[in-house]
Amino acid sequence: MLHLKSRSNPWWLSDVPKHLPELLVDHAHCEKKAAGTALGLIFAYVDHPDLAHALAEIAEEELQHFRQVLDHLTRLKLGFCRQRPSQYGERLHALVRKGNPERIVDRLLVAALIEARSCERFLILGPRVGDPELKDFYASLHHCEAGHHATYVRLAGYFAEGAVVQKRLDELATGEAEIIERGDRRPRLHS
Amino acid sequence: MLHLKSRSNPWWLSDVPKHLPELLVDHAHCEKKAAGTALGLIFAYVDHPDLAHALAEIAEEELQHFRQVLDHLTRLKLGFCRQRPSQYGERLHALVRKGNPERIVDRLLVAALIEARSCERFLILGPRVGDPELKDFYASLHHCEAGHHATYVRLAGYFAEGAVVQKRLDELATGEAEIIERGDRRPRLHS
Repeated sequence: MLHLKSRSNPWWLSDVPKHLPELLVDHAHCEKKAAGTALGLIFAYVDHPDLAHALAEIAEEELQHFRQVLDHLTRLKLGFCRQRPSQYGERLHALVRKGNPERIVDRLLVAALIEARSCERFLILGPRVGDPELKDFYASLHHCEAGHHATYVRLAGYFAEGAVVQKRLDELATGEAEIIERGDRRPRLHS
Repeated sequence: MLHLKSRSNPWWLSDVPKHLPELLVDHAHCEKKAAGTALGLIFAYVDHPDLAHALAEIAEEELQHFRQVLDHLTRLKLGFCRQRPSQYGERLHALVRKGNPERIVDRLLVAALIEARSCERFLILGPRVGDPELKDFYASLHHCEAGHHATYVRLAGYFAEGAVVQKRLDELATGEAEIIERGDRRPRLHS
C-alpha cells in the first residue's frame, strides 16, 4: 500500500490500540512534527516556489489535524503533554543521504513514507477504537495522508528523474519496513 | 493603533511602495517567518493546549497568506528568492527577556507588535499600489493581522496578570517605535 513494503506487526495491531490516551498524545505530536517538517523544507528550499506552495498547503493541513487531535483530547478529558516519541522518525531520518540533490530527494521521500505508514495505521485503528468520533476522524485522516504521500513523491520529481525517484523510494521503503519490523514496543503511532 | 507608539516614517510612505517586487518577496518571507514563530512557540510550550490550539490557527493563516503572496508573485511574473531581511525582527527579538515567564510573555508580545506593525503597513500600502488585486489583498490582510495581534496579547495573559502584560506591552511598544524610527532604509515591510 502506498509503496510500503510491510504491514504492521501483529503485536502493534493487538496491543497498541489499547493505549488510546498515549496514542492520541503521540498523534498530536506527530501532526505537529509533520507541520514542522513541511515548514522546515520551505525554509531550506525557498528557491522553488512550486515546492513552497505545495508544502505550505501540507503544513496547513497538518496543523488543522493537530488542532483536531487536541480537540479530541479535550473531549475525552485527556491532557496534552510532552511524551517520549518512538525511534521511528530518528531511525528513518538517519537514512537521508548528504549533499544535494540526494538530500532533498531523500527528505521528501522519507516524509512520503511517514505519511504512508500513518495512512496504514489509521486504517488499522479505525475499526479498533470504540469511540465513533475517533472512528470518523481516523477515516478522514487516512485519505488526507494518502494525498500527502502522493504530493511528497511528486515533489521529489523536481529534483531527480522519475526512474531515479522510484528506485530510491523503493530502497527507502525497504529501510522503513526494517525499522517497523524492529519496532520499539512503546505504544506510538509509528512504533 | 493596536498599541503601536508611532506611525511610519515619511520616507517609508513615499519611498518603499515604489519597490513593489522587493516588497512582495519580503512579504512572502515575513509570512513564512510568522508561521515559523507560531510553530516554534507551539514546540516550546506544549504543556498549554489552549495556547497550542490558538497558535496552530495563526500558523495556518500565515501559511495561507504565504501561498497567496506566492500566487501574486507568479501572477505579476516576479520570482521568489532569498533576500536580505530588514533588521527589524532581529532588533525586536533582542528585547526579549531571559527566564520564564518573562521570556514567553515577551515572545508573545513581540509577535503581537510585529502583527500590529504589519497591520499599519498594509493600511498604508493599500491606497498606494496600482494593482487592484493587491489592493484587495492588503485590505483583507489588515483585518487578519489585527486579529493575530489581539490573540497574541490575550495569550500573554496565560502567563502574567493583565496589568503586568499591559505594562510590558507598553515598554515593548516604545522599543518597537524606536526600532522603526531608526529604520534601515532597505525597502522592506518592516524597514
